[in-house]
Amino acid sequence: MKANSHKQTINIGMLGLGTVGTGVAKILAANEHCIAQKVGSAVALKKVLVRNAAKPRRVTLDGLLTTDPAAVIDDPEIDIIVELMGGEEPAKDYIIRALKAGKHVVTANKDVVARHGRDLFAAAEENNVDLLFEASVGGGIPIIRPLKQCLAGNRISQVMGIVNGTTNYMLTKMTADKSDYEAVLAEAQQKGYAEADPTADVGGFDAARKIAILASIAFGTRVTLDDVYVEGITGITPQDIEYAGEFGYVIKLLAIAGETDKGVDVRVHPAFIAKNHPLAAVNDVFNAIFVKGDAVGETMFYGRGAGEMPTASAVVADIIDVARDIQHGVASRVLCTCFDNKPLCPIDKTEAPYYIRLLVEDKPGVLAAIAGAFGCQQVSLNSVVQKRKVDDWAEIVLITYRVSDANMRMALSALGGMPVVNKISSVIRVVGE
Amino acid sequence: MKANSHKQTINIGMLGLGTVGTGVAKILAANEHCIAQKVGSAVALKKVLVRNAAKPRRVTLDGLLTTDPAAVIDDPEIDIIVELMGGEEPAKDYIIRALKAGKHVVTANKDVVARHGRDLFAAAEENNVDLLFEASVGGGIPIIRPLKQCLAGNRISQVMGIVNGTTNYMLTKMTADKSDYEAVLAEAQQKGYAEADPTADVGGFDAARKIAILASIAFGTRVTLDDVYVEGITGITPQDIEYAGEFGYVIKLLAIAGETDKGVDVRVHPAFIAKNHPLAAVNDVFNAIFVKGDAVGETMFYGRGAGEMPTASAVVADIIDVARDIQHGVASRVLCTCFDNKPLCPIDKTEAPYYIRLLVEDKPGVLAAIAGAFGCQQVSLNSVVQKRKVDDWAEIVLITYRVSDANMRMALSALGGMPVVNKISSVIRVVGE
Repeated sequence: MKANSHKQTINIGMLGLGTVGTGVAKILAANEHCIAQKVGSAVALKKVLVRNAAKPRRVTLDGLLTTDPAAVIDDPEIDIIVELMGGEEPAKDYIIRALKAGKHVVTANKDVVARHGRDLFAAAEENNVDLLFEASVGGGIPIIRPLKQCLAGNRISQVMGIVNGTTNYMLTKMTADKSDYEAVLAEAQQKGYAEADPTADVGGFDAARKIAILASIAFGTRVTLDDVYVEGITGITPQDIEYAGEFGYVIKLLAIAGETDKGVDVRVHPAFIAKNHPLAAVNDVFNAIFVKGDAVGETMFYGRGAGEMPTASAVVADIIDVARDIQHGVASRVLCTCFDNKPLCPIDKTEAPYYIRLLVEDKPGVLAAIAGAFGCQQVSLNSVVQKRKVDDWAEIVLITYRVSDANMRMALSALGGMPVVNKISSVIRVVGE
Repeated sequence: MKANSHKQTINIGMLGLGTVGTGVAKILAANEHCIAQKVGSAVALKKVLVRNAAKPRRVTLDGLLTTDPAAVIDDPEIDIIVELMGGEEPAKDYIIRALKAGKHVVTANKDVVARHGRDLFAAAEENNVDLLFEASVGGGIPIIRPLKQCLAGNRISQVMGIVNGTTNYMLTKMTADKSDYEAVLAEAQQKGYAEADPTADVGGFDAARKIAILASIAFGTRVTLDDVYVEGITGITPQDIEYAGEFGYVIKLLAIAGETDKGVDVRVHPAFIAKNHPLAAVNDVFNAIFVKGDAVGETMFYGRGAGEMPTASAVVADIIDVARDIQHGVASRVLCTCFDNKPLCPIDKTEAPYYIRLLVEDKPGVLAAIAGAFGCQQVSLNSVVQKRKVDDWAEIVLITYRVSDANMRMALSALGGMPVVNKISSVIRVVGE
């Protein structure tokens, strides 16, 4: 790429002109002058791949739109391909083609990075070009570059984040209004925060892609979507949120990655987190990523995790970074950092304290029987509280000490078979203790 | 620097082996392998300038210590000079000498960067070398690189931070324990959080240096320490903290920089900030920097703002960044970004709502007279509450609407001359409204 040094204009080819693409076009136009000062040359959109060139747009890009991918990817004057199509294919194919054509690539595509990161980085390395993806996690929040560069001197032990705005909005609403899941989901859909099919968000899969990406960087080993244990928020009730509050916790959907002596543990699930933890105060559609390093200690990155302009902010940062590289005749300065191949920690070996809510017969000796069933699986109880009556049943809420997932499953299975137990209503991990 | 490409070992010369220097030596030793993987070569301490080579040290650096600055700065095998002496001179002189000798420089020195940034960057640019200073603000918190790179596509409108751990610890303690300033200062000194002469911290001057640096980057115009309006926390009382709480605020020492139509406004002062603002929850020695950009919206960076290992984490990040540049044969990729020369907003033109506590005669008509004195200076009152009796005087607490600093000064001067006013006990700005 050294031949590109000191270009007058750095040309961008953009794939996709949806929400984020529109935001990128807006920023490149509105902040053209500041960006040119920082890069030392103009940065201009040259071509934009769209599905329908006739569709009305919120930005004026006369003459730039095309429906032919090759017209963008193979344009010899284009220096940087910005992929904002989303989804695995054809995005992955286009990215690989662009890298092979010697173009730098900026992408916001968490699906592609979380599943095919290895292939993409290999192609970038072979072709000595940049591949940046700051916008793939945390929207506008700087997190990829901080992890890869600012915390590069640390051994990271944990990354824990609220990385899905839809579910955080829903849980915040459920907490504030004591409203139930279905009502809040409908409201989120009506406000445009949740999709018509909300599965990717409420099922935890969006968060899983993001934590796979963060874990790969934090621990220097490739973690893909399939490696992530996932539970969503569909089972969370206002009752659980209320009890969490009484115990001094809030419920958040957390994406957690940790390096333990049993391997790299990567998961997404709802969790009780203490009210005084910095993540507990992250509300509405805001996201935050909490990182623990051996030198830096605890650090957190907070901001808007989605939306047109925040996500575009991250994309444009990557474009500026690549443009600076082009002007300095350097490329692939910071590529894949997965130098190791570390084992994963299977979910049944992970450990946590648990919150459990269950309905049992309201008669003497039942609590002792339940405690006994837990005890058989080495589950010690930290607190047991009898709550309201539900029909003829007594509602019991308990919090355990730290226990392995495997033992908890066995204890729950035993409990489920006990005649005095009517229902195990909720089982939620407690984190950050 | 291209001749340096693909070195087997990148040699560091360190100036100073105090708290942070010791931390850097520890990290380079402990995380040697990970760092080498990231850089593509070993990164090793070659020489360390100390005042007393015979002094016992907490790290073993046999044979590396010297008391001769030239032995470090002029060593042709040293690639990166890491300046951790603190203070203006001789640190500035050594940095300039190192830059002129073609060495990259990493510094944690806020004094030098806040006062002499322009000269240092000019020297770095002339000699085509890197000059990085992530550790000069916010200790381990990534903030310089995020502002210069991750948010580079934004026009930043405001940077507001808790950037001094000593005063944040003191205010947190005063809030939690209702203890007074002197008692908390003594405790902070005893714990090692405050110096024997605490002026730099409690007077706001440490924070002023840091916000000068952040403002320069955020607004692309050189702001030096002398441009910063500074008030410290020495006048803050438990009474003010209690009243703040009743109004829904906490008191924090804030470093604030904003770009307004009256110029760039840069100041440090105690402030009321709403309890639900993300900065309000930043307690103890933690720091956080809140940044607003036109694209990204609100974002915040949180972590340990001081201390051996957190600050060393930032220094090592810079070392790794320079080492990556050396290995890729590039330098001065991101240097000074002060492309503009923007006017400053003088403090008397800044605007804020104010909290005021005063003792007045306890008789009819006094409140009306006070409201009248404010009214004459276009100060409207948002709320006025009569609190306890202090001796024979009535304590009045009021919060104004937004008013200029100039008008507030005139109103306070008029109030001070009124016979019914015994004392103006406190005047504190309200921010984030």
